[in-house]
Amino acid sequence: MSAPAPTVAELAQRYGLELRGAGAARIDGVAALHDAGPAQLSFLANPQYRARLRETRAAAVVLRDADAAGCPVPALVSRNPYADFARIAALYESRPAAPAGVHASAVLAPDAVVEAGASIGPLCVVGARSRIAAGAEIGPGCVIGHDCVVGAHSRLVARVTLVARVVLGQRVLVHPGAVLGADGFGLAMDAGHWLKVPQLGGVQVGDDCEIGANTTIDRGALGDTVLEEDVRLDNQVQIGHNCRIGAHTAMAGCVGVAGSTTIGKYCLVAGAAGISGHLTICDKVTISAMTMVIRNITEPGEYSSGLPMQDNRSWKRNIARFRHLDEIVRKLLPRQRDPDHDE
Amino acid sequence: MSAPAPTVAELAQRYGLELRGAGAARIDGVAALHDAGPAQLSFLANPQYRARLRETRAAAVVLRDADAAGCPVPALVSRNPYADFARIAALYESRPAAPAGVHASAVLAPDAVVEAGASIGPLCVVGARSRIAAGAEIGPGCVIGHDCVVGAHSRLVARVTLVARVVLGQRVLVHPGAVLGADGFGLAMDAGHWLKVPQLGGVQVGDDCEIGANTTIDRGALGDTVLEEDVRLDNQVQIGHNCRIGAHTAMAGCVGVAGSTTIGKYCLVAGAAGISGHLTICDKVTISAMTMVIRNITEPGEYSSGLPMQDNRSWKRNIARFRHLDEIVRKLLPRQRDPDHDE
Amino acid sequence: MSAPAPTVAELAQRYGLELRGAGAARIDGVAALHDAGPAQLSFLANPQYRARLRETRAAAVVLRDADAAGCPVPALVSRNPYADFARIAALYESRPAAPAGVHASAVLAPDAVVEAGASIGPLCVVGARSRIAAGAEIGPGCVIGHDCVVGAHSRLVARVTLVARVVLGQRVLVHPGAVLGADGFGLAMDAGHWLKVPQLGGVQVGDDCEIGANTTIDRGALGDTVLEEDVRLDNQVQIGHNCRIGAHTAMAGCVGVAGSTTIGKYCLVAGAAGISGHLTICDKVTISAMTMVIRNITEPGEYSSGLPMQDNRSWKRNIARFRHLDEIVRKLLPRQRDPDHDE
Repeated sequence: MSAPAPTVAELAQRYGLELRGAGAARIDGVAALHDAGPAQLSFLANPQYRARLRETRAAAVVLRDADAAGCPVPALVSRNPYADFARIAALYESRPAAPAGVHASAVLAPDAVVEAGASIGPLCVVGARSRIAAGAEIGPGCVIGHDCVVGAHSRLVARVTLVARVVLGQRVLVHPGAVLGADGFGLAMDAGHWLKVPQLGGVQVGDDCEIGANTTIDRGALGDTVLEEDVRLDNQVQIGHNCRIGAHTAMAGCVGVAGSTTIGKYCLVAGAAGISGHLTICDKVTISAMTMVIRNITEPGEYSSGLPMQDNRSWKRNIARFRHLDEIVRKLLPRQRDPDHDE
Repeated sequence: MSAPAPTVAELAQRYGLELRGAGAARIDGVAALHDAGPAQLSFLANPQYRARLRETRAAAVVLRDADAAGCPVPALVSRNPYADFARIAALYESRPAAPAGVHASAVLAPDAVVEAGASIGPLCVVGARSRIAAGAEIGPGCVIGHDCVVGAHSRLVARVTLVARVVLGQRVLVHPGAVLGADGFGLAMDAGHWLKVPQLGGVQVGDDCEIGANTTIDRGALGDTVLEEDVRLDNQVQIGHNCRIGAHTAMAGCVGVAGSTTIGKYCLVAGAAGISGHLTICDKVTISAMTMVIRNITEPGEYSSGLPMQDNRSWKRNIARFRHLDEIVRKLLPRQRDPDHDE
Repeated sequence: MSAPAPTVAELAQRYGLELRGAGAARIDGVAALHDAGPAQLSFLANPQYRARLRETRAAAVVLRDADAAGCPVPALVSRNPYADFARIAALYESRPAAPAGVHASAVLAPDAVVEAGASIGPLCVVGARSRIAAGAEIGPGCVIGHDCVVGAHSRLVARVTLVARVVLGQRVLVHPGAVLGADGFGLAMDAGHWLKVPQLGGVQVGDDCEIGANTTIDRGALGDTVLEEDVRLDNQVQIGHNCRIGAHTAMAGCVGVAGSTTIGKYCLVAGAAGISGHLTICDKVTISAMTMVIRNITEPGEYSSGLPMQDNRSWKRNIARFRHLDEIVRKLLPRQRDPDHDE
């Protein structure tokens, strides 16, 4: 931003927001409600933080109509404050531009293709027959194996590995430490030893996907592992071979999905949930944190499992009873058949 | 495969399988039942996919005798279809050969030893007194610290770290992002601050082990952390210091094993299970997904814990009751002593 | 240690320990009770290993007064044997010294600052405006982005990534594969697509922190993610954006903490526990392994959840009952209102 910082009124107009209050202040940054100073814009989206609104010293706040009355400073009224704030915040993002071209320290296979306008950072490796499309940015320390494609305007931040046969769409963002295209976990027991089942497929990642730090997505055993467009994976997620993740599905940190599972579109999977292999989850399913999914899900909705924390003494008493829950119920309700037991 | 592709009959003969049907078709690849075309071999091992057999267009299918009658195309009958398919599929694996020798961009300590026929890829580092045996392949971006050994025909795919005193046997395969030999988590509280306990041991990995992407195996505090032969670890597994994992044991993704635990031979640990420290697990134990293991296991068999998913409303009602389970049982069965409570 | 190895008596004097027995043996290393030979020092801190004391062949053992009577070899009596052993063991730690200066293969931004006495290893990258303080050691293959600081005498072991705006204090130790400062998981749903919320903050890491292999700590969305001094994180821990972790808190492997959660000082979080976002945990809280924390904790103490393992048949019976627990209790205690249900 070398131009003068925009005023609150200018932001209102540019992003189609209704301004309530004075619009003359110039905004040179963004901050949380409790941190923002008089030249910074803030926002209120999560009702949990409503109490902080009263004390904010921000220049202006992006918020819902219902919250505007309680705002002590100028308000920018939005139907989706988090999204509108995100758009404005992008104005204040800055990082050193990656120069187009191939850094002298990078090592490229003779038949690797780097299109004009792509950037290959220092200490990268690009393997045989791989192609880096125009506008793509390969940050420092990335290793791209053979037969990969990085689509236009995609970015591998740093130290990302694409092992083999990984095809990324456009505007894909991959964070450091992620490994795409490593062998799936395919083993056959044979005369007392494990025999490795060759993993021959690839990984397809649709446009606008984002893949978190140290997340792993295995290559398919035969076909490909697929992320459809706009899938968002947080850090340390594990996606097994031959999974298919539907468009616009998001998974928080530490989720694990075993192989050959298909997940629908617009699903939300909260942190550390585990999903078994060979399952099918329909569209618009929400899975709460640490939930264990071991059956198909055929109806949209929210699904949960796990026990929330208690003080240690209560927990010990309760799990001791749980160990005998079936016996206890049989004693108390001797004639009631357990409806799930024999399935 | 520059020779002409083998026929179904040739594969039957080479791998000792019984051919039922015509054997003349040439097989130039392998694919899943629903994807395979008329020059591809497929297989049926998991009964869940039996329905797909009827519609396959594969050239031939490797399957069990019991499934052969339902096969619409030539069948290769096997007692272990997954294993026999794996052997055949290996014919169709191809990747650019790693050239023997040390890439010009690699950085080697003066006293590192690279045996004839080993390959050190671009942008690798090999530290003091480490040795890379004949036929071993160190892929791009690996860092090998001091006093390590990579055994003959082992392969570090890319961007693997062996920190210090890590000794790999023969034919070990390590996937990208794995870290072997980092310090174990040893801390002593001392006058209100943590004091780091020096981690002086190493890691020993037996022949034929496979270690998944972003998996971590800590060095021992005093002795070594040990994987016996043919141990198979999937991605994002964590093995604490001084663990010993028995031969032929396999662990799926996201399993965590805390320090100083000993696990037997031929165990199977499913995804995201957690095993506490200082335990002993006997041979031939199967632990199901997301199970919490906090006691020794002395009998072979299958062990489980965790709650499978329910719809969110039912779950909320049930966990609310669980919070008071001991009280409820005391009220209903006032004279029954809890057998586990006082242990 | 080029000087002659110290005797038991010399160690007793230097570390203020009471010697019981002969002090003449020279100690040239440290080992576990069952491994130690006649020139090695061992220790007994965990009562679980008391039986091993009787059979030790160590030169001497560091232990508590109460255990000294059962020690068959000279004893060094300590009130905190683990800590005193740790101090002595540090004498026997050896690794090749990292030479001061910048390795020829490293790639530094023109405005990166490397203070005198710092060491930048091979194949590292240091970005714009970043500063590596005196005595800091950047091991091989690290990538440091823009606007980072590595404080005096901190060490990045190898292949660590600091993405952007990461500030490490003094004597911080970061293990391989760790990623600090990657974008937090900030997304707004907007007209059926995800809109990325810019992640503009940084990460602050206090003095004496230790960060495990493949652990990830996201940069703040607006403000910073903060680790206060002496925080200890094991491997594969995930810390979401805008978290604050109090001084002297330790977390074992595979713990996940979602965004915007504040954890107090002197907390202990055992392996694979999960802590939801936007929570506050007070000081001196212990959370046991695999516990699910979804509410604030306002009282010091120990908290737990999860079900310990059973044999698979018992578990199946019990979870089948759990699925109907609320119904069962309603039937048995029809007049008892569920106290938690409506909260």
